Formats: sequence, structure tokens, C-alpha cells
Amino acid sequence: MSAIVNHQILLASRPEGEASTANFRLAQAPLPALAEGQVLVRHHYLSLDPYMRGRMNDSKSYAAPQPLGQVMGGGTVGEIVESRHPQFQPGDKVVGMGGWQEYSVVDAAQRGTLRKVDTTRIPLPAYLGAVGMPGVTAWYGLVKIIAPKAGETVLVSAASGAVGGAVGQLAKVRGCRAVGIAGGPDKCRYVTDELGFDACIDYRQYADAKALGKALQAACPDGIDGIFENVGGMVLDAAMLNANAFSRIALCGMISGYDGAPIPMAAPQLLLTNRMKLEGFIVSEHMDVWPEALNELGTLVATGKLKYRETVAQGIASAPEAFLGLLKGRNFGKQLVKLT
Amino acid sequence: MSAIVNHQILLASRPEGEASTANFRLAQAPLPALAEGQVLVRHHYLSLDPYMRGRMNDSKSYAAPQPLGQVMGGGTVGEIVESRHPQFQPGDKVVGMGGWQEYSVVDAAQRGTLRKVDTTRIPLPAYLGAVGMPGVTAWYGLVKIIAPKAGETVLVSAASGAVGGAVGQLAKVRGCRAVGIAGGPDKCRYVTDELGFDACIDYRQYADAKALGKALQAACPDGIDGIFENVGGMVLDAAMLNANAFSRIALCGMISGYDGAPIPMAAPQLLLTNRMKLEGFIVSEHMDVWPEALNELGTLVATGKLKYRETVAQGIASAPEAFLGLLKGRNFGKQLVKLT
Repeated sequence: MSAIVNHQILLASRPEGEASTANFRLAQAPLPALAEGQVLVRHHYLSLDPYMRGRMNDSKSYAAPQPLGQVMGGGTVGEIVESRHPQFQPGDKVVGMGGWQEYSVVDAAQRGTLRKVDTTRIPLPAYLGAVGMPGVTAWYGLVKIIAPKAGETVLVSAASGAVGGAVGQLAKVRGCRAVGIAGGPDKCRYVTDELGFDACIDYRQYADAKALGKALQAACPDGIDGIFENVGGMVLDAAMLNANAFSRIALCGMISGYDGAPIPMAAPQLLLTNRMKLEGFIVSEHMDVWPEALNELGTLVATGKLKYRETVAQGIASAPEAFLGLLKGRNFGKQLVKLT
Repeated sequence: MSAIVNHQILLASRPEGEASTANFRLAQAPLPALAEGQVLVRHHYLSLDPYMRGRMNDSKSYAAPQPLGQVMGGGTVGEIVESRHPQFQPGDKVVGMGGWQEYSVVDAAQRGTLRKVDTTRIPLPAYLGAVGMPGVTAWYGLVKIIAPKAGETVLVSAASGAVGGAVGQLAKVRGCRAVGIAGGPDKCRYVTDELGFDACIDYRQYADAKALGKALQAACPDGIDGIFENVGGMVLDAAMLNANAFSRIALCGMISGYDGAPIPMAAPQLLLTNRMKLEGFIVSEHMDVWPEALNELGTLVATGKLKYRETVAQGIASAPEAFLGLLKGRNFGKQLVKLT
């Protein structure tokens, strides 16, 4: 297979503040011959996710920093094109962490690096979204942290995104009122009309947490029992102004601070006066729940009850721009890069 | 008993910002004759606690606002002087919520209003401190929220206070490193030399959260696994800078904001990157743990293993000044008012 050229995106430099295309470099590398136990995967889709921005920094975070000069890490779905492992055959569809490149050579014997998936009822790219890491993220934060009861109100920010959209739909399945926050009227309409949320607030219409809080109050007449937070800053402050006693915050992301701007929490005393629980989490540390979560998510997607939308960029060279757009909310639903 | 005059402190007005003696009024009232099932309690000690400041405001909080023109609420220990209830005899020592007054008439039949206590091995006022609400508060936050393992580091602010002092000693019993934060060298010396904490930091020596954070780093070489928070603001910010992955915050009080000053949390993203858990609580909502907690606290006090200090003001008229001093940290250990 050495004739194949593998195009890759490397991290060229770390961002100072906002990330830019200059932080990435397109490179190419020949593919090595397979050793025993290895497989060659041709990536069909690359997943772009907000957590990748944190890994571009050289600071303490839950994820180890992305090394400079190396291929950007990331989830991929693809197809086995060559195998020296008995459990994988050419043509098998697989999900893995192949990174920002067209091909990867994987030690298939190592547990958890590569998983065969069934695409008869679930489309291959869904394994990077609703039936993948974003879906399980939604499931974990909602089911294990917020643990909502029927009739409670669940609020989720970045509600049109891959994670947020699943949170609200999983909450509806559980008999909750689901309210979203998203950026712009198109996304809000999608969240209510297509995803079936009870309401969605366009945060861009409000100047500060107090004004956004009033809009949330109207959308959440019984207050908020669960907050699934992807954004932080004014969005979280506004949500907390409407939090009920004994409400829960699943802290999944704080994308408003990813470029280094301070994002203080205005009124942490509300956590005390409302006797709230808050928990930060990263789904890859809870692998024990993945089978249960993927089972529910897969069934819901296969039966058309869990909806999602994808924004697809074409070709590995488009990955940096698509990623920067994701950080600015330019995507609509799950951001993918198609590599075939 | 109608000849007895009962001196009382009423809430005269709500504070605008800082509370002052003008918010209180000394009054007197005759005592009514007892109805069937009632007892008359002569209060020996009144407990003063930071939570009372919150109740002076007319705002949404976990405690209902203290009504204007009525006797300030509060925990008391005392002695039955007259009884029309078969389970209480004159001379019985009791703990209850008699409020800021010298006597109270109590419907003893109502469960939980009055509890007989044994003063053979535990001094009566300890039932307002280490073997009372503050002790159970320490126990609940430490045992049920922080749930420390031996070898972990537990940090507690307001460490010389009734709650904070118990937190550190209970943590030591569990094999933890206990580190305190207190105001001034005398309090810090007491926390380490008398209460047995491993270290205590005087926050007054540090200008901001960053500087205090560095001092905490030196006192907590393995980072912080559990934060028992009584203060908020810069003290909590500094603690969070040293929080380990999977650390827990028991949010018990935020006295730095009780006068209405904003106390933003500077870097809530640390809750995410460190996958922390935070829980606000009020101990009166967890009555199920009181028997277990009081059993441990009582045994430790009776055997001299749980130490505490009391600051005692004399006479009901001194309660407002003593309370304002407590809010400024002028007390040393548990603040009481002696009423006999």
C-alpha cells in the first residue's frame, strides 16, 4: 500500500487567544507496511468537536495537550482496506480515533482502539455524532448527572449542536420539558420544529445575563431543574437565575472561554441558596456507561426518534476552516469532514 | 409564671448592605400561661450563626426571611422550668430553637422542636456547637459530600469557627491532611496547635486569589481533594487553583457575600477541566444523618478528641453586637450568648 499518499493536518503552532488557520499545516506522509495485528483504515469521515480547541493549548486540562508537529487527534469512521488482524476484514466499517488524516494504521489488538459498526440501520457518520461520543456525552450528563424526573424542566445550551440536540430529545423521551439556547433564529426554529424541544431562546437577542434570564423565565415557567452546560459565561449565569432548589448542572463544556477570555460565574451563591449540585465531566472517563448509552441512542436513531443534522466539509484540507467555524457556531448540528 | 419578664431581640428593620445594631430592637413581653402539652424553657445559651444574616434579608434564599418585628430565630439550650407535658420535667436540659430571648414556651408534643440532652459528659453549650447544628454541618459536608479517603487533602475556610474546626478534626480522624484558612495569626496558631490541623493559612497576608493560591500550594503539596467552603470569593478562587482532578466542594456558606457585595467565581472552567463535583447544602434538610453524626461528634467531644473554643457574650442585650462581630470574624470559635 505504500503507493498511497496520506494527507494529514498537523498542529503547527499553539494559538495566542483565538485559533486561526495558521495554527495548522497540511502535510503528507507515505503509509508504512502493516505489521502483524495491524490494520489499515481509510477514513470516510472525520469528527470535529469543541474539546479539540482545549487540546491546542499547552495548559493543564482534562485532555493532554496535542503535541506540536503531529497529526491532530480526532474521531473517525471508515473502512478496513487491509488487515493483518483476524477479527477485521477489508470492507468492515469501523469507528476509531484516527485523527485529522485520510488513513490510519491501527494496532487492532489493542482493546478499544477500533470498533466494528453495523451500518444497515444507522448511517456510518452517525457513529461520530448521535450514536458516538457526542451522543454518549449527552446521555451521560443528562442521565447520570441531571437524572431528571418526568415533568422537570431541562435547559441545554448550544442546543442545535451534536450534544445539545441529543440532550433535549433524550429529556423529552423521559417526559421532561426541554428548553434550548442557540444562536440565531434558524437554529432555534430547527431546535423546536425539527428536534421537538418545547422552546428555544436565541441568546443573541439579549445583551446580558439578566435580560437572557428573563427570556428563560418565560420559557421555563416552573423554573429549571437541570442545566446541561456547553457554553458558560452569560448563558450559564442566566440559567442559574432560574434554577430551582435542588437543581443539577452537568458541566460539559464552556466554549465561551476557549480562547482564554475570563468567564467568571457571576453569582455562585445561587449554588448554595438553591442547594444545587454541579459536576464537570468528560465522557471518555465513563466508558462503563457507553454500552447502555449506545444501545438507547442507536435504537432511537434507527427508529427515527432521535434526529440530528450534519454540516459536512469536503476533503482533509478543509478541516481547519471547518473547525474554526465550529468554534464560532457557524456549523449546524454535527460538524464532519468527508474524506472520500 | 406571669411575673417573669422575657427579654427579647426583635428584627426591627432589614439591612441595606452591612447589618448594624439599628436593625435590632430589645423588647420585653410577659410569658403566657402554659396550655396542655406545653413547656416553659429558660434559655441558658443562645447560638449565633452566620446563616442568620441571610434570613435578615427579604430575598429568596434557602431559609424563609426572618419576619420583621418578631423575635430573631436561633438555636438555644436551656432548662425546663415548668411543664405540662409528661415527657419533660423541671430541671431537664433541652436543646431547641428558642430564638433570641430569655425564655420560650414550646409545644413539646410537636416532634423535633425540643430534645432532651445528657450533660454528664458533654457540657450544655456544646449542643449548640460541636455536638449540635455546626458539628452536624461539618460532618455532613465532609462525610456525605467530600467523602474523603485516607491520605487525601481537605481544605476548610473559616477554620477556627464552630463548623470549620470540626471539619478539619473529622478529616484528621479519617486519615486526611487537614489544611485551614483563617483570619490572623492567633486563629491560625489555634487551628494548628490546638485543633491539630496540619497547616493553616492566614488569608489576610495575601492580596489576591493568586497570591493566596501560592500559599495554599505550599501547604497542600499534593493538591486539594476536598474543599469545605464557608467564605467564597477570593478564598474559594484560591482553593480552586489547587484543586485536584475529581475533587469535591461542599458549599456550606459564602460569608464574604452576605452583605450583598458581588462574589463572582473567577474561573468556573476549573470545575470542568478538573471534573469536580460541587454541592450546596443546608444541614436542616438532612435530618436523617443527624443521629449518626451526633453519635460520632458526641463520642469525640466526650473523649476529648474533638476540641472547640467558645466566645461567650453576656446577656440578651449583647446579642446584636456579638452577632455583628461574628460576621466580621471577631469571634474565636463558637459564638454564644449566655443568658443566665
